[in-house]
Amino acid sequence: MHLKIFVDFALPPEARARLEEGAAGHELIFPSKPATSVLAKSAPDPAFYEADVAFGQPEPSEIAKSASLKWIHVSSSGITRYDNAEFRAAISERGIPVSNSASVYNEACADHALCFMLAESRQLPQGLASKSASGSDEWLRLRRSSVSLKGQRVVILGYGAIGSRLAELLKPFAMKLVAFRRKARGDEAMPVVGQDGLPAELAIADHVVNILPDSPATADFFDQKRFAQCKPGSVFYNIGRGTTVNQDDLHQTLESGHLKAAWLDVTEPEPLPSDHPLRSLPNCHITPHTAGGHLGEATTCVNHFLENLQRFTKGQAILDRVM
Amino acid sequence: MHLKIFVDFALPPEARARLEEGAAGHELIFPSKPATSVLAKSAPDPAFYEADVAFGQPEPSEIAKSASLKWIHVSSSGITRYDNAEFRAAISERGIPVSNSASVYNEACADHALCFMLAESRQLPQGLASKSASGSDEWLRLRRSSVSLKGQRVVILGYGAIGSRLAELLKPFAMKLVAFRRKARGDEAMPVVGQDGLPAELAIADHVVNILPDSPATADFFDQKRFAQCKPGSVFYNIGRGTTVNQDDLHQTLESGHLKAAWLDVTEPEPLPSDHPLRSLPNCHITPHTAGGHLGEATTCVNHFLENLQRFTKGQAILDRVM
Repeated sequence: MHLKIFVDFALPPEARARLEEGAAGHELIFPSKPATSVLAKSAPDPAFYEADVAFGQPEPSEIAKSASLKWIHVSSSGITRYDNAEFRAAISERGIPVSNSASVYNEACADHALCFMLAESRQLPQGLASKSASGSDEWLRLRRSSVSLKGQRVVILGYGAIGSRLAELLKPFAMKLVAFRRKARGDEAMPVVGQDGLPAELAIADHVVNILPDSPATADFFDQKRFAQCKPGSVFYNIGRGTTVNQDDLHQTLESGHLKAAWLDVTEPEPLPSDHPLRSLPNCHITPHTAGGHLGEATTCVNHFLENLQRFTKGQAILDRVM
Repeated sequence: MHLKIFVDFALPPEARARLEEGAAGHELIFPSKPATSVLAKSAPDPAFYEADVAFGQPEPSEIAKSASLKWIHVSSSGITRYDNAEFRAAISERGIPVSNSASVYNEACADHALCFMLAESRQLPQGLASKSASGSDEWLRLRRSSVSLKGQRVVILGYGAIGSRLAELLKPFAMKLVAFRRKARGDEAMPVVGQDGLPAELAIADHVVNILPDSPATADFFDQKRFAQCKPGSVFYNIGRGTTVNQDDLHQTLESGHLKAAWLDVTEPEPLPSDHPLRSLPNCHITPHTAGGHLGEATTCVNHFLENLQRFTKGQAILDRVM
């Protein structure tokens, strides 16, 4: 099977070389102006309409205009721009499978979440900023603000590949884990609650790890009411999507001290403006959507695509199929 | 058995209450001016010379003058001030057992070490300081500077309770661990090398975790020669004692970029002066000896002592006996 593969995805030289080597026998088409990130839009390109496979971040409007597409492989873990009823219906009718790159970023995202949890529990930002002397009030406060993760309670919202990897990383800490998921599948490595059971779990959790994707159903999922359900002194983490949090409500909850701290890798918008109120809170820590990033990620992403390319040409089930 | 217990150890009210409750039946003697930290010296107190048990940080010179002491329980993990041939000989001759509080701080120290490793691998300080936009050069650099711990190599120097707990925490990362220990005991959870085997391991390790104690044998253990043995781009962590590192040599190694970064919880002196050259390096991250600290640590320490008190009065082997 000879496929025309449209690669709408900014690739560093070594990743591009790997793709060219791995996709030998197929035709690779690169647009003149590739997207620089998973969140930016690429320019329309006439060559797209001849492609059999789209690898990257193809525009839904362009996909609708293409008659040749047989498979779409999204280069990110998030699929927000495709995750709506209209797109799903059209794709399903045309029988085009859609896969994403979740496996590529799971590991680094789970590492990032654990890093956040340990940085809070060890009071890392405060420690790095302190030159306090042994025995001083500041020093004693620092040591006493550090909390062992061992045996504490965690709620993971949006249980999937990242959540299950995080659960593996947390195993040595013997924490009590609960997942929130709209529908339990039965294969989760921990107890699962739905909407009804969530408030009771939030009320006793020390750590609330939000990995919810962006969708109409998750918009402002964490608002004043939800934060009020959280245990006083608990810590909130967001490595999902910024739109799932009402940031005004988060600000109020952090300022009041009801939440001990928040650690956010995602915000709305990104980057969060320098003068945004969340930036001035000492208990709000923000990284600029770097959770999934890692050395060689483009090559990992290409290898993941090539694995799927082989599966697709052999008529096997593709990995990380989302539609 | 009714014992006079001299408590030379600054205790917050709840920990003191726990001690008073747990040591009922014995006599607790508190000096008028207790030591504020494990590294400070307490004032001599005449009541000390009547005590059967010393719990805290008794001065070796005071111990030498006491005829009544039957057991010493040090309130820290480090025992530098007692760890010399003269003291060991005197204690051994008098048949006084010495125990420390290693178990109290192991967990938090191992957490701190993993926190350092993840903060480096996730580029946490750089991420927290960045407001970079998705797709920008700074953002791409941040993501590409992040490295997955999975499968990387670690050398742990000074393998003991902290090192073995760290190994447990690192298990999900499937890292390749090697311990450096003067004498292998055979019960280590990883391969052990001595002086001869160390250079070859340093040459391939991505992470060098120094938990060496302070002693004449470990003074300046990490000097120019040792750092030169480390793999270019590796990361150095110190949660042992500051005296084990030649800080001028560390500075040079970090400035040259031979080491990617250093994460230090201990320095010499502590705190490191504000104008110390190590403080101005962007790849040197320092916390003020807070690694073992945790909420309720004084109570944990008291409970550990009380467990040993029960063992001592029953003639059983005491925990964490170091001499």
